[in-house]
Amino acid sequence: MNWGVLDRYAKSLIKEAGQHIKHSFSTEIVVSSKSSANDLVTNIDREIEQFFIKRIHRDFPNHRIMGEEGFGDDIQSLDGVIWFLDPIDGTMNFVHQKRNFAISLGIYIDGIGMLGYVYDVMADDLYSAMKDEGAYLNDIRLPKLMDTTIEEAIVGVNASWVAPNRYVDHDPIIDLVNKCRGTRSYGSAALELIHVATGRVDVYMSMRLSPWDVAGGMIIANEVGAISSTMSGQQPGMLQSETFMVANASVHTQLLEEFIVLKK
Amino acid sequence: MNWGVLDRYAKSLIKEAGQHIKHSFSTEIVVSSKSSANDLVTNIDREIEQFFIKRIHRDFPNHRIMGEEGFGDDIQSLDGVIWFLDPIDGTMNFVHQKRNFAISLGIYIDGIGMLGYVYDVMADDLYSAMKDEGAYLNDIRLPKLMDTTIEEAIVGVNASWVAPNRYVDHDPIIDLVNKCRGTRSYGSAALELIHVATGRVDVYMSMRLSPWDVAGGMIIANEVGAISSTMSGQQPGMLQSETFMVANASVHTQLLEEFIVLKK
Repeated sequence: MNWGVLDRYAKSLIKEAGQHIKHSFSTEIVVSSKSSANDLVTNIDREIEQFFIKRIHRDFPNHRIMGEEGFGDDIQSLDGVIWFLDPIDGTMNFVHQKRNFAISLGIYIDGIGMLGYVYDVMADDLYSAMKDEGAYLNDIRLPKLMDTTIEEAIVGVNASWVAPNRYVDHDPIIDLVNKCRGTRSYGSAALELIHVATGRVDVYMSMRLSPWDVAGGMIIANEVGAISSTMSGQQPGMLQSETFMVANASVHTQLLEEFIVLKK
Repeated sequence: MNWGVLDRYAKSLIKEAGQHIKHSFSTEIVVSSKSSANDLVTNIDREIEQFFIKRIHRDFPNHRIMGEEGFGDDIQSLDGVIWFLDPIDGTMNFVHQKRNFAISLGIYIDGIGMLGYVYDVMADDLYSAMKDEGAYLNDIRLPKLMDTTIEEAIVGVNASWVAPNRYVDHDPIIDLVNKCRGTRSYGSAALELIHVATGRVDVYMSMRLSPWDVAGGMIIANEVGAISSTMSGQQPGMLQSETFMVANASVHTQLLEEFIVLKK
């Protein structure tokens, strides 16, 4: 596999998809819900996923695709090349804000992340990384993250996880919220991963993310020295929804040791 | 008072101040803290406030200024023309993110908001309004807000208020978080007010905001039909820190009736 060539191909697909999304604002966007009333999907999410799949299947017939909207392949193992795609990460922002959403794409071989992309469509900011080759915002290389402590960290955590929930004990999360410098919540996992990779936020955590939410951003975060894991400290398995956290190495350790108490 | 002339003058000051802030990223920014370790201030906040005050005192000697950094006048009443200025609203974002902060300015006469501005410096987006003349994003008029319900609302609330706190009973806030469509937190009161005025978020609430945080954004929000108040439903008094909430009229009523229980 020539990863440089694949990188150029993927970037071109992403930019073309971004154009489609921008144009969609002048057409009718049909919003419906999936698993719950607040799990939104639109005709545009579906069209963009189908656009990617058609192209990838045509040009790389041996590659498989796991997409949020379910038009991809039935992935049961991580063998070979897999594209993990979220055509619009942050669909609620797409619908309500017409900004603050992203195309998220990660290309993996045998479970190893090789190429990662998060495209903030409305800002026209493409974050990308190739394994061991560094991470970029457009043409600008992103610096390595510096160590921090929870006390000086901005923590990306949704208010839901501060309330009683079925995933983690919320009392240590309340401690975290009170102890850290501040909290933020942006409504797009892919962009929140990028906020960590760029140092805008020091931690991002969520109780339930899918492989396509994190596949691209994790490769980018990894290149600047951030650690991604489940909340039990494992490498994400990439075959199902899991808990997720990403932070610089020092804060990642502190979080796991002091603030995360998973429910059984 | 010729408000049209004052509007042009204020916009010009704001844009000039924005240039100073942008240039500051290539100079040394000195960060210190004020009331608490997380209440940040920089030399740039102070320089920008002094820039405004010097100009306003020179050109409008009868006007008074209430500024976040305390270089303005000692304001004990709302008589006459008062400029409420936050030179950098979202200082933590300014320091950590180099984006997502704003210049916030409201010009009031005898307590009535006449001209409001929130300038998202890095996006170069100037939100502005003149009383009874509508609100604008740059040259584009903002549409009136439509009524919604809590169930379909995105709620801007910081995770701190979902945890036990001394201002409101947090149990109804947990209900709110669970009942609404989603929550967001951006770390700049002025921009969060704007997110409500533009319909990107449907509610913004905070337990403690100062007049300079909300003075500009309230005038803008008012022009699109949003209701701003304290959490006891009163008009903000504009002379001290208070609770604050802003939403479209239907959600504002629902919030006060069902979700806000103030502590004594």
